[in-house]
Amino acid sequence: MTRQQLFQLIQKKKSFLCVGLDSDYSKIPDFLKELDDPVFEFNKQIIQQTHEFTIAYKPNLAFYESLGTKGWQSLEKTIEFLKKYDVLTIADAKRGDIGNTSKMYAKAFFENLDFDAVTVAPYMGVYSVSPFLEYQNKWVILLALTSNKGAFDFQFAVNKETSRKLFEEVIIKSQQWGTADNVMYVVGATQATMLADIRKIATDHFLLVPGVGAQGGSLEAVAKYGLNDHCGLIVNSSREVIFASKEKDFAEKAGIKAKELQQKMELVLSEKNLI
Amino acid sequence: MTRQQLFQLIQKKKSFLCVGLDSDYSKIPDFLKELDDPVFEFNKQIIQQTHEFTIAYKPNLAFYESLGTKGWQSLEKTIEFLKKYDVLTIADAKRGDIGNTSKMYAKAFFENLDFDAVTVAPYMGVYSVSPFLEYQNKWVILLALTSNKGAFDFQFAVNKETSRKLFEEVIIKSQQWGTADNVMYVVGATQATMLADIRKIATDHFLLVPGVGAQGGSLEAVAKYGLNDHCGLIVNSSREVIFASKEKDFAEKAGIKAKELQQKMELVLSEKNLI
Repeated sequence: MTRQQLFQLIQKKKSFLCVGLDSDYSKIPDFLKELDDPVFEFNKQIIQQTHEFTIAYKPNLAFYESLGTKGWQSLEKTIEFLKKYDVLTIADAKRGDIGNTSKMYAKAFFENLDFDAVTVAPYMGVYSVSPFLEYQNKWVILLALTSNKGAFDFQFAVNKETSRKLFEEVIIKSQQWGTADNVMYVVGATQATMLADIRKIATDHFLLVPGVGAQGGSLEAVAKYGLNDHCGLIVNSSREVIFASKEKDFAEKAGIKAKELQQKMELVLSEKNLI
Repeated sequence: MTRQQLFQLIQKKKSFLCVGLDSDYSKIPDFLKELDDPVFEFNKQIIQQTHEFTIAYKPNLAFYESLGTKGWQSLEKTIEFLKKYDVLTIADAKRGDIGNTSKMYAKAFFENLDFDAVTVAPYMGVYSVSPFLEYQNKWVILLALTSNKGAFDFQFAVNKETSRKLFEEVIIKSQQWGTADNVMYVVGATQATMLADIRKIATDHFLLVPGVGAQGGSLEAVAKYGLNDHCGLIVNSSREVIFASKEKDFAEKAGIKAKELQQKMELVLSEKNLI
């Protein structure tokens, strides 16, 4: 999916919502657990009820890997099922390794699983990112500023030479490796005002914002500081949507929650004349 | 495995060799590809011929993930097979995520797959590491200084406040989270003299050194600057050992190569009176 196609999708659905498929086996409704593949069944019903309001889905790999081979099968079936819909698929894998290993990860996520995008950790530098950039119409979503408390351990370290914080260095340096057409950044929303500063150094890039909802960010503030002329935001909500109910109506309630978020997004998109 | 048990293992085998099971499907001998599970069969034969000279095995997750469910099965069988031997098992996964996701990764690698150790990326800070540290006698091997060229992109950035490089910050800060009994560091061997500086800030910790062999480090230099009073080094070799031959004798040749490395290690251990 190109950047233009992504913006068209956003305009069509009047939404920039990403639903995080953090499909924790211990949290999915008990009645699903009698089925052959409870995690896939859960995802399938969530997707059916939310896709109308959603432009992207982001399975979090940890929840699948923790179930071993069976979890990997659920993931394969989920991504296959997602192909029915007009959505961006993101592997939230946070992989990051040297060149030949990185190539293998790119193969795993872009060829075998055919995801549109994958989250990548920047610590090991350019060659942990570049193998992913060799694929046409695929996306690297690079960790920059995360929304957890641990973000303060290293991401805010000021570089003596450039006076820039580490996450700013990541954003600036990675623009030598890719462009706004194949790189996005993960930017936490716990301090939405920081998005204004990030927009100065990543004007055209899409930002994947994970911290709205359960993690505490406000959608309005994120939109205020983060939107650009082609939206430029993908806002993720995981638990708030997928675990809106633990009963028989879990998928329906997820749909209601997704619609609620979509409507808020429609409002801010409209205010900015983006739709 | 405790730190003391690891040192005893090193003394018993007179080796601190780790064999990296970067078992790239495209590089394993063709005649194995007629079998049901070529990757597992390759690993099995490599392990049988090398375990006598080897204290640790390190499957690189990318090579298994790139084969999907089938690759995950090969990994499960490999770790099961490794349990027959007295070795440390390392999942080279370089995972790193926030708390609840990190817990899932810890579950995946320490409970389900029952690895002894896992490599972790530090970018997201303390909570991407701490869930792994809740397991007894298991190890986090934290990326500090890697041996690739991309290491220079961020790992050498000098912190304005502390005047320390990022990889030094990682080593120092993480000592507030764990101890030399549950944390090791990945330290590249391309510049062995840097090991001397790292030893000053990580006196007791085990260091996993990936850059010997195909990646170019010298074992003697690594030993000179890196050994401590309980060895404190695990030196990895992947391609040099496992792809020593692509013919019928691949496992035998891998054994010969592993023995060669073990004998060099025996010499340096003996010179330092560690055996």
